[in-house]
Amino acid sequence: MNGAESLVRTLVGGGVNVCFANPGTSEMHFVAALDRVEGMRCVLGLFEGVVTGAADGYFRMTDNPAATLLHLGPGLANGLANIHNANKAMSGMVNIVGDHATYHRQYDAPLTSDIEGLARPNSHWVKTSPSAKTVAADGALAIAAARTRPGQIATLILPADTAWNEGTGPAPVAPQAAPKAPSADAVEAAARVLRSGEPTLILVTGRAVREDGLDLAGRIAARCEARLMAQGSNARTQRGRGRVAVERIPYVVDQATKVLAGLKHVILVGSKMPVAFFAYPDKPSVLTPEGCEGHVLARPDEDAIAALEALADAVGARNTPSPAVNGKPAGPATGAITSDALGASLGALLPENAIVADEAVTTGRGFFAPTRAAAPHDWLSNMGGSIGLGLPLATGAAVACPDRKVVCLEGDGSGMYTVQALWTQAREGLDVTTVLFSNRSYQILKGELANVGAGNPGRKALDMLDLGRPDIDWVGLAKSLGVPGARATTMEEFNRHFAAGLAASGPYLVEVVI
Amino acid sequence: MNGAESLVRTLVGGGVNVCFANPGTSEMHFVAALDRVEGMRCVLGLFEGVVTGAADGYFRMTDNPAATLLHLGPGLANGLANIHNANKAMSGMVNIVGDHATYHRQYDAPLTSDIEGLARPNSHWVKTSPSAKTVAADGALAIAAARTRPGQIATLILPADTAWNEGTGPAPVAPQAAPKAPSADAVEAAARVLRSGEPTLILVTGRAVREDGLDLAGRIAARCEARLMAQGSNARTQRGRGRVAVERIPYVVDQATKVLAGLKHVILVGSKMPVAFFAYPDKPSVLTPEGCEGHVLARPDEDAIAALEALADAVGARNTPSPAVNGKPAGPATGAITSDALGASLGALLPENAIVADEAVTTGRGFFAPTRAAAPHDWLSNMGGSIGLGLPLATGAAVACPDRKVVCLEGDGSGMYTVQALWTQAREGLDVTTVLFSNRSYQILKGELANVGAGNPGRKALDMLDLGRPDIDWVGLAKSLGVPGARATTMEEFNRHFAAGLAASGPYLVEVVI
Repeated sequence: MNGAESLVRTLVGGGVNVCFANPGTSEMHFVAALDRVEGMRCVLGLFEGVVTGAADGYFRMTDNPAATLLHLGPGLANGLANIHNANKAMSGMVNIVGDHATYHRQYDAPLTSDIEGLARPNSHWVKTSPSAKTVAADGALAIAAARTRPGQIATLILPADTAWNEGTGPAPVAPQAAPKAPSADAVEAAARVLRSGEPTLILVTGRAVREDGLDLAGRIAARCEARLMAQGSNARTQRGRGRVAVERIPYVVDQATKVLAGLKHVILVGSKMPVAFFAYPDKPSVLTPEGCEGHVLARPDEDAIAALEALADAVGARNTPSPAVNGKPAGPATGAITSDALGASLGALLPENAIVADEAVTTGRGFFAPTRAAAPHDWLSNMGGSIGLGLPLATGAAVACPDRKVVCLEGDGSGMYTVQALWTQAREGLDVTTVLFSNRSYQILKGELANVGAGNPGRKALDMLDLGRPDIDWVGLAKSLGVPGARATTMEEFNRHFAAGLAASGPYLVEVVI
Repeated sequence: MNGAESLVRTLVGGGVNVCFANPGTSEMHFVAALDRVEGMRCVLGLFEGVVTGAADGYFRMTDNPAATLLHLGPGLANGLANIHNANKAMSGMVNIVGDHATYHRQYDAPLTSDIEGLARPNSHWVKTSPSAKTVAADGALAIAAARTRPGQIATLILPADTAWNEGTGPAPVAPQAAPKAPSADAVEAAARVLRSGEPTLILVTGRAVREDGLDLAGRIAARCEARLMAQGSNARTQRGRGRVAVERIPYVVDQATKVLAGLKHVILVGSKMPVAFFAYPDKPSVLTPEGCEGHVLARPDEDAIAALEALADAVGARNTPSPAVNGKPAGPATGAITSDALGASLGALLPENAIVADEAVTTGRGFFAPTRAAAPHDWLSNMGGSIGLGLPLATGAAVACPDRKVVCLEGDGSGMYTVQALWTQAREGLDVTTVLFSNRSYQILKGELANVGAGNPGRKALDMLDLGRPDIDWVGLAKSLGVPGARATTMEEFNRHFAAGLAASGPYLVEVVI
């Protein structure tokens, strides 16, 4: 059994059974091994940003890493932006990057590059396997690294001769360690803060924004008259009717400082003290008021649920009634398309157990409030701020959860980055309804230009922010890649087309003309 | 004048007057400065791979670097694959990468990353400018670095506060140094080899495959009964009727070793001893026969034309008749679409002074022979082997040469990587006719799977190489991005649609169904 097959069997044996791939010559033995090994699903992306973003979505929905298969340094480079996003989301991922055969590197053939150097800035674990005899064992180490809690980026570089030479057969993968127990001191310190009666925010993210974490945090906040919020972005928030709602720290600095005004304490549950997404002249980087203290209840690698349980016990909140949402959203909106109207219709129409992959940027900034009481759903946000994640994230989530409807909320500027994902959705018949907000601009930048004090833009500056001339025909674009769709210019049309997408069993795209 | 404007004025003053851009918040002051500074053309790409590939094309046609404007680490990462290609093409490029304000980096906001670490593997020069007072001077250094012969990748990282704080005004840019004179010893050594009568190849690339270099090399080869070839890929080959033709070292190892069999000497003019693009089990990495010696006539940073002139003088070839092509290509082909037929039609129909951006991969491998006697034209190849260069390269070449027709020969697999370039062509009204070879597969990999000895692929392996299910509708895709086009299923249709593209004054796409 060659090195490549030994590695594929190690992955499958270790529970990594999905591989998002865009292979090349140096990965052909890995590809060939797929035919001989049962249990590995390989999904082709026509650009590596699709591959790595899908792996992020897959991890968020399964808490288990997928593999990616990438072609030398440039293939890795093309996937790096979404690896950056996955890294910030603390998603686990096993990147397999082919390289030239060990003896061929010295000749500096065209595709030669410093793959380790490219991988290092966004990887927790990087290794070039030296021989076919080490590939399986190194693969096992990569899986273990990717599963290190909460999740890590592991990048294994596979010279072509380590794939085709005789290997060892599969290597055993170390079991995942249990999450670290929370510190009793941290629990006691947080309890003390909550008992003080001083203005306190419980700031949650990561595992704590799933249903059970929010239930506990909601009871604690209710019991202690503390506030409860989530980070500005969160990997996977479980929300909707019957669950505890959280608002997020606003993106806009002035709004965020207003929301956080008066606080004396922030209890950090997997989260960090809130900071501005960007710096702006004459605006603060730190969003909390001066003198406001942070208290770490659980670090990202610690067991946030156990920490919240211990804290709930310490403050006597276990039997406090859960402040779960029990209303119903208003009906779908009609008339002109606005951000508020879209939020209202989404709130009314989101199906039970949907997965929302949100990269709606400006248009979607206000969607949380009107979807509070929607049917229960998971909401995935972009954690690293690099646009071009939404369509791939939805793709990976749909591969992970074939029985759930995925709704991708996507901006036109962001969507263009990794539009190739639509083809993968078509090939795999993935159940993704994309709502594409076509405002024909990098709308967020128009605000940012003013925020940074860059003055009134003229024609040349505005040209860098406008996506018009020509307007992109998103329905035609989706259709060319095998995804049917329709265009909405009124809320009535949106409601109808969105429902058609939800009723379809494969991918569908609704272009919303803003 | 703030730092950003000081930098823009430095660029313009230093002769860098095109900027391919995809800016974000941290680049807004640079964008705003564009309105205040005359002489900088800014071209928006909807993905950074378009931006950097266009800068490569621009350099190849002007021998002068363009700037790129990229948004933090992920924006740079998205552009890295085509920076890799530009680096291997020895193209100069000034990358301006925005970063968080210096004082904001410590907070690890979502877009924070190690930008220098990402830049280093593919940049000759990397610097983070520390303050608004240094930005202009650092910009001048970056331009000088990019212009270091033959051309280099310079990456200047611009923290947001260095853009918005008070700067210095423009800084002067050091003039470009003349190319290094060739070594007299190297000329004499090459002349000795040529006089020996032993089987010798003159292997040219870089500046030596322009019209004047090939004219000299052709006379020398004719005079000395040596062979003349070009590298497998070359940045810009000037060819066609009235010019000296060169064949290239074949991509396929067995073909290459056959072509090079019997050689005792290779005279290297900007080139390296030929090696295999990839390693394969039981095939050599070095393509020349054992004992064949390389002799460097001119390194890439040396003056190849002066070296060839000196060598021509040394061997008495100045007045040898130039072996220029003086035939005429056969007429356009008719009937079924084949690679040979396409080559014949391209040879007959390529317009005078066209620029060919070639990423046709498998379909186009044989296009050089049938276009030998085409109207004079420039031929640009992918030098780094990272696919997704063709459409951006054509875009940049068209910006550089608005009076010339650009013909982009593009594979479907490669084209999907950076398809966003079509939109930029539409926005800028660029005169690019794209010929898209739609064989609905990564055809090259089907051969490579066999070459690496990975055996007969089964369904799962083939799924990673096939681009069908669904078939991509390239005419619809182009149209959705503002580029008109037509589909050809016979050579008659190809000839008609290609002529229509050439007759149009803006972008056009011909999908060729293989």
